[in-house]
Amino acid sequence: MIGFSLSRETKRLVVDQPFFLESGEVLPRLAIAYRTWGTLSPERDNAIVVCHALTGSADADAWWPSFFGAGRVLDPAHDFIVCSNALGSCYGSSGPISKAPDGQPWGGRFPALSIRDQVRAQIALADELGIKRIRLVLGGSLGGLQALEWALLDAERVERVASIAASGRHSAWCAVWSEAQRMALNTDPKYRGGHYPADDPPRAGLAAARAVAMISYRSPQSLDRRFGRACGADVFGDAADSPDDLAASGWLRHHGRTLTERFDANSYRRLLDAMDTHDLARGRGDYQNVLRCIEQPVLIGSLSSDALYVPQEQRELARLIPNSRLVEIESEHGHDGFLIDAPAFHPQLLAFKHSSASRRARPSSPHQEASRWLAAAIEPASS
Amino acid sequence: MIGFSLSRETKRLVVDQPFFLESGEVLPRLAIAYRTWGTLSPERDNAIVVCHALTGSADADAWWPSFFGAGRVLDPAHDFIVCSNALGSCYGSSGPISKAPDGQPWGGRFPALSIRDQVRAQIALADELGIKRIRLVLGGSLGGLQALEWALLDAERVERVASIAASGRHSAWCAVWSEAQRMALNTDPKYRGGHYPADDPPRAGLAAARAVAMISYRSPQSLDRRFGRACGADVFGDAADSPDDLAASGWLRHHGRTLTERFDANSYRRLLDAMDTHDLARGRGDYQNVLRCIEQPVLIGSLSSDALYVPQEQRELARLIPNSRLVEIESEHGHDGFLIDAPAFHPQLLAFKHSSASRRARPSSPHQEASRWLAAAIEPASS
Repeated sequence: MIGFSLSRETKRLVVDQPFFLESGEVLPRLAIAYRTWGTLSPERDNAIVVCHALTGSADADAWWPSFFGAGRVLDPAHDFIVCSNALGSCYGSSGPISKAPDGQPWGGRFPALSIRDQVRAQIALADELGIKRIRLVLGGSLGGLQALEWALLDAERVERVASIAASGRHSAWCAVWSEAQRMALNTDPKYRGGHYPADDPPRAGLAAARAVAMISYRSPQSLDRRFGRACGADVFGDAADSPDDLAASGWLRHHGRTLTERFDANSYRRLLDAMDTHDLARGRGDYQNVLRCIEQPVLIGSLSSDALYVPQEQRELARLIPNSRLVEIESEHGHDGFLIDAPAFHPQLLAFKHSSASRRARPSSPHQEASRWLAAAIEPASS
Repeated sequence: MIGFSLSRETKRLVVDQPFFLESGEVLPRLAIAYRTWGTLSPERDNAIVVCHALTGSADADAWWPSFFGAGRVLDPAHDFIVCSNALGSCYGSSGPISKAPDGQPWGGRFPALSIRDQVRAQIALADELGIKRIRLVLGGSLGGLQALEWALLDAERVERVASIAASGRHSAWCAVWSEAQRMALNTDPKYRGGHYPADDPPRAGLAAARAVAMISYRSPQSLDRRFGRACGADVFGDAADSPDDLAASGWLRHHGRTLTERFDANSYRRLLDAMDTHDLARGRGDYQNVLRCIEQPVLIGSLSSDALYVPQEQRELARLIPNSRLVEIESEHGHDGFLIDAPAFHPQLLAFKHSSASRRARPSSPHQEASRWLAAAIEPASS
């Protein structure tokens, strides 16, 4: 079993009861690794839930540092901030590297997951922590998918949702990105359909999958600005490895390699598959109607150069969710802008956190409200 | 040695002389598979050269059918049309599946190639065919890179160039797409660094590489329109293969699989690597100055949704090449629009073919000319 180091502050909840998954499979017990910042108020109504992306962990202060601090959207002096490791991941929650009932790691036997399973695990944690009201659920990418599911799965408790660089259902475009990664992983015979020994994991396959994903996270502009083109005589200099050893190619290989040192291939596959299940309307009826039923205020964050969850998807969300605000950030960083451009989202997130959380399915006044407290970049989208 | 079937009409030129490559390596002899349509005029001045894309062949009438016919840009009644298989490919020209001097297939020993090597092989063919003037060199994608090199490598003979969905030098963005494909191919242990037996090729690796490439050839809109989303209970139905067996995922796997039935992995790798060497300025000086030295009229074709050779690259070409015309096609088909949307390019290509081929490095009048013979979609770009 590979050890993926957790921060010292990471806590762990173990619920010794069967956890039923959307697939019909059952986890005999549920472990959730999580971190908290700040203190739950006596009224238990000051919680904020943060949801991480594909290869993230509960250490939200490490990957979204600009959101944390006094006067910021995640302010430990006033908020009780909770971030948990996603079900299926390898940073402390139940997943392929945790132990199955037979005492051996689940490995490839770990059941398939959905985004809803992951959110229901987060809900179980909120229950255990005694949280009565959640002021805000905030997430980007995979976390943004989860944040939207929170609005529906725990409608009473959740007051506001902010979903960045995400969509209401996984597109065919996103599905082929996932599939290309699965193909790359499956190409490595060491993957063995997920049944690999912990000391001989499919590094090459996971690295290739990550390389594909890295492209989807960036944009032509960001790479060209960063790397330009290193042409010249060395074009034929490194034929054994990559005959065109451009800096950009090396950067890609580096990202592939480093993920294999910190992530488990089965976890990667389970989370990738979970993202592909994403559809807010599955089993709930017509897609448009389901989105119209979301009553909470929802901030939809969008990046102009996002090549994975393309801006049209966030515009559609904002059009269909009645009480929504669209925040479009001009960025050249592509999908990874949800991390790199986090500071650009902050003013609007902060205003959103402090805005009225009244639920009106088809409000008449919030548009005027919005024009008062939102920066010009925010478009009230339910008109 | 795998056999890749050639059309009955494919001819073959063998030049029994050493062919010197840009890398410093030497091919002891050069074979070029090619097709021709029409007849070379007594003045030998009616040739048109067509250049194919990554996995194409000399059968231009099969992959660009809408360009062929009476009154069209490729008109066998008036033009002598030549299309040859790219050096390094597996459709009849010298490449990894052709025989090395030892009588065995080159395989992984076949030397690295550049776009210029490929064009120089095409030039050798034009010499052998006795062509004196080339009215037009026309290509898309890899063929579009070659077309631009033709303008510089055979400046006297080439009267006009049309380059669609290409660039003047391979971007960092294009380089990471190539690298992800190489990583996928290398992940297959059957690849063996290119030294695989003909009867046991790296199918999984080549399929995964092709899957990555297929994403780069399409767009979010085209896939979402085609496949939509097939959600519902079957999300967990096919866990052994792909737990989210969306139609789009199946489409991707199909494209990966079918390429392995018609293409050689070493050829794929050599052509991919050649594309990464592309830089019109390599060894020629400053990039902008080199482009300003192209004197022929150049039509630059661009697709609004091209996610690989992005429209900014064609706009840059059109800005820098003095005698250029930019033809921008609104398309949702992404890079593959160079094939799918070929009919949309045709009127402008036809007008371009019949336009004056006078060379003026910095013309004053062609803009007015252009406004007469070009459709509104064409932007004179050298202003």
